[in-house]
Order: sequence, then structure tokens, then C-alpha cells
Amino acid sequence: MGFAQASAVAPVGDGRYEGSIAPGWDIAGNANGGYLLAIAARAMAAEVQRPDPVTVTAHYLAPGRPGPVTADVAVARRGRTFATATATVADAERPVLSVLGTFGDLSARPGGPERVDDGPPPLPPVEDCAPMRPPPGPEDLAGGAPTFASNVDMRLHPDDAGFTRGAPTGTARMRGWFRLPEGEPLDPFSLLVAVDAFPPTVFNADLPVAWTPTVELTAHVRARPVPGWLACAFTTRYVTGGFLEEDGVVWDADGRLVAQSRQLALLPRGPG
Amino acid sequence: MGFAQASAVAPVGDGRYEGSIAPGWDIAGNANGGYLLAIAARAMAAEVQRPDPVTVTAHYLAPGRPGPVTADVAVARRGRTFATATATVADAERPVLSVLGTFGDLSARPGGPERVDDGPPPLPPVEDCAPMRPPPGPEDLAGGAPTFASNVDMRLHPDDAGFTRGAPTGTARMRGWFRLPEGEPLDPFSLLVAVDAFPPTVFNADLPVAWTPTVELTAHVRARPVPGWLACAFTTRYVTGGFLEEDGVVWDADGRLVAQSRQLALLPRGPG
Repeated sequence: MGFAQASAVAPVGDGRYEGSIAPGWDIAGNANGGYLLAIAARAMAAEVQRPDPVTVTAHYLAPGRPGPVTADVAVARRGRTFATATATVADAERPVLSVLGTFGDLSARPGGPERVDDGPPPLPPVEDCAPMRPPPGPEDLAGGAPTFASNVDMRLHPDDAGFTRGAPTGTARMRGWFRLPEGEPLDPFSLLVAVDAFPPTVFNADLPVAWTPTVELTAHVRARPVPGWLACAFTTRYVTGGFLEEDGVVWDADGRLVAQSRQLALLPRGPG
Repeated sequence: MGFAQASAVAPVGDGRYEGSIAPGWDIAGNANGGYLLAIAARAMAAEVQRPDPVTVTAHYLAPGRPGPVTADVAVARRGRTFATATATVADAERPVLSVLGTFGDLSARPGGPERVDDGPPPLPPVEDCAPMRPPPGPEDLAGGAPTFASNVDMRLHPDDAGFTRGAPTGTARMRGWFRLPEGEPLDPFSLLVAVDAFPPTVFNADLPVAWTPTVELTAHVRARPVPGWLACAFTTRYVTGGFLEEDGVVWDADGRLVAQSRQLALLPRGPG
């Protein structure tokens, strides 16, 4: 199921929206955090009637399982330029994530001074990068169901693909291309998926880590992307106290910064 | 008024806490954003009964004026390790900030692999740094009232102090030492002030900017600080679309990363 359909929500009144966690948007049964944030952000943007998620933060409360969800949106402030709201996305049994976001219209932002210290990550051409497929999960073993890797199109920088062959590079970094498959256009909400789609940076560090559950994810959307591949780079500088941050930058095909992200994740002790 | 007293809250039931925005915690009449976040975080930590703000995000809705405020806390989830809540801090007339946070007990975090790509910023000794005083505001002109610069003790790296003499360095960076005056101990909530206390990084960039209002501030607290000066560094890489990010790292006197922050701020066109 394409991203727009998989993340769609419908209002049912009093700030409540209905949607569903689609099958195939998970890694080993847990829905992707960026995808869950996109569902929430669509409901929030609809409720405050602003098109773009300027800055959104999700705190993850429980794994997202496929099935119906509700998003309850409470508006904190409707200003002239921005509107701020909170949302809780819940399945039938419990809350899955809490979100706080400020929304606006990025097409109406004023011009002004621009200053960019670095540009998009240096990536080889798409055809020289490695198509990203996660390790087979239960849903693959069950036979041919859609997977996250088939719902997004990611190509990893070959220099960062060592971990897929059991040879981590030693640098906690993931760089690569991102787009939606089958020519689906990139809207600002798809950037929320892009910032959380790549494998954890620490898979390339020499750490005994099998997974890094996200506590919190914040994304800033700076601009709407033009059509084409997104160039993405994720890095981790500090693994301390059982936590790590993962910082992301996403550039569109015009070489423009369209999103910046940071997440706080946990570093459980791995089996190593 | 010291930080602990200025940010104290008292429960009045049903998740509501009362506190006040103290005079002298503002810059030109707007209370410091980190200080406001600390008020909210104290109420949230009390309500969820966890001592430490692990990750907190504030969205600023209106300027914080001195006077009584309420913080209404709603618990989203109480887990074994963490608890998540939202809060709205409001004055008599309107909401001032919305906050989403996850709280825990940092003293109970498991050991595990540590990996730090860089250390504290290279700062000259405290006595060789520049005591930070903001430009005189109306409250100074009114004669001797307390100011933000007297409620926190900040010393700026001389290499980053050019802007105070009308000579921006050209690098969007601020580094320096931070502590609370009169020997007040640093608790985890004081780190929320530290991440938002220094002058805007872009004061050192050659941009026509007089102020950079914060839309959103996220702080991750990695550890409780030991007594002593905090070494702080703030940088901005991307000024685009009328936005800029400001990234911060805060290290304690043992050279340990205690907080990491990012804020999204607006870049209004200055008078230049």
C-alpha cells in the first residue's frame, strides 16, 4: 500500500481522526516510527488547517501493530503564522505515540538570508548504491507479504553498507537515497518517513547492538521537496548512559535542505 | 531569585501545578525559554514521579511575562523504565508553552558500551573567558532590577565574544562556561536553562539578525551533572527558509556529556 493511502486519516469530529497502521510498514512487527508520526501529523495538520509539519516531536509509547488507530488532536494555539497542537495516536488497547507539533505554510515563508555550512552528502549515483532490504522478518517467512523495504525505496551508500555483510565500517553513519516507490510524489509528510527509514547508524559502529528502540523523534521540515530522490545522511556522535542520538539531514533533488531530524534511542545490551 | 526557587511548582490536584515566572529570568521582557521549560518539566516530573527529564520538547506559544502560571500535566504512559506526559504552562490570559516529555531515573540507567566522537569544547580557563551580560533592557534602565545575566553565570569563549564588540566572528557558534550563581547546585532541570542561555549563535554570523525567537526546543538529558562549571557549545549549520537550528552540547566538570539540545528558531529580517 502506498504511503499516502497507508497514512491517510479521516475526521470523525471533536478533533478525532481515524486511520490505520497498514501492514508492511513495520520492521519485525513494529511499525516504523516515522510512518506513525506521519499518521499523527496528517491528523494534526488537518485539525489546525495548515499544510506543513514545520516541527513535530513524537514520543513512542508502545509498538504500532497493524490495524485501526485513532488520532485525538488538541489545538494549543492558532496563530497568524503557525498553529500548535498535541495528538495521541492509539490502537484499540492503548496509546501508541504522543506528538507535539507546530504547523504552517512553508510556501508562504519569507525570503531572507540563507547560510548553509555544508551541502548534501556526497553519494554515488543511485544505480551504484545498494538497495536496502532489512533482514527477513516473520512476515517474510510467512510468505510474500509486503515489507517496509518494499514500501519505501532506499539505496545505501556502498561505503556505509558494510554492516549488511557483517562488516561494520566503524563509523556510526548511514547515507543514501530515498524515494517512494512507483513514482508516488513526496509530500512534506513523507519526509517524516525519510528521517526514520534507514537502518540505525550504530549498525556501522562496532557495538553489540541488535536494535535501538526510539524514545523520541523530532523532525523539522524546512521546505517542500521537489520531485526526485532525496539525499539523506544520519550520524551518531554520542553513545552514553544507555542512550544515543541519531541526527539526520535530508536534501531534495535541487540540493535544498528539506528536513533535519534528531532522535533519542535506547541502546539495549545486544546478544554480543 | 535562585533557579530552584524561581522554577518551583506546587501541586494543587488533578495534574495541575502552580508556579510563577520570576522577575529577572527574562531577556527584554520575554522569559528565557529554557527556564520556562524547566518550570514545566518540574511539574511533569512531579506528576509522573520520576526524577529526571530524559527528553523534553517545548513549543513556545506566547512570551512569558513575570507573574503566576499554572502547569496542567496529562500523563500519557507510566512504564517500567520511563513515563511520558504532556503539559501546558499558562498565565492568567493564555497558554505560554506546550511541552511533551519522557521522564526516568538516570541514576538507574544500565551500564553498557560508550562511544563519544568528540569531547567538551576547548575552552580557556574560566577567568580568561568573558562574563556575559546582555544589552541593557528596559528593566536595567528602570534601575537595578535583577536580570537574566545576574541569575545565571555565563563566561563566553573569547574567540566567540566578537559580537559583543560589534565584530561577529563569522562563525555561527557560541561556546562558554555555565553555572548557577552563589554556589547553587546544578540539578538536571538546570540543564534545561543551560541549553538555552547563551546568546544566539547567529549573533556571530554576518547576518542582519537582531533576535531569533524559538519555535521549538528539545533537550535530552543524558546524565546528572557533577558540581562545577558546565562546558557548553552551540552551533548553527543551516539558515534556510526563514528558519535556523541551534544545536547544543553540555558537558559537566568530569568531562561527561550531560545534555544535548536542538532548537528551531525563526530568522526575522533585522533592521539591517
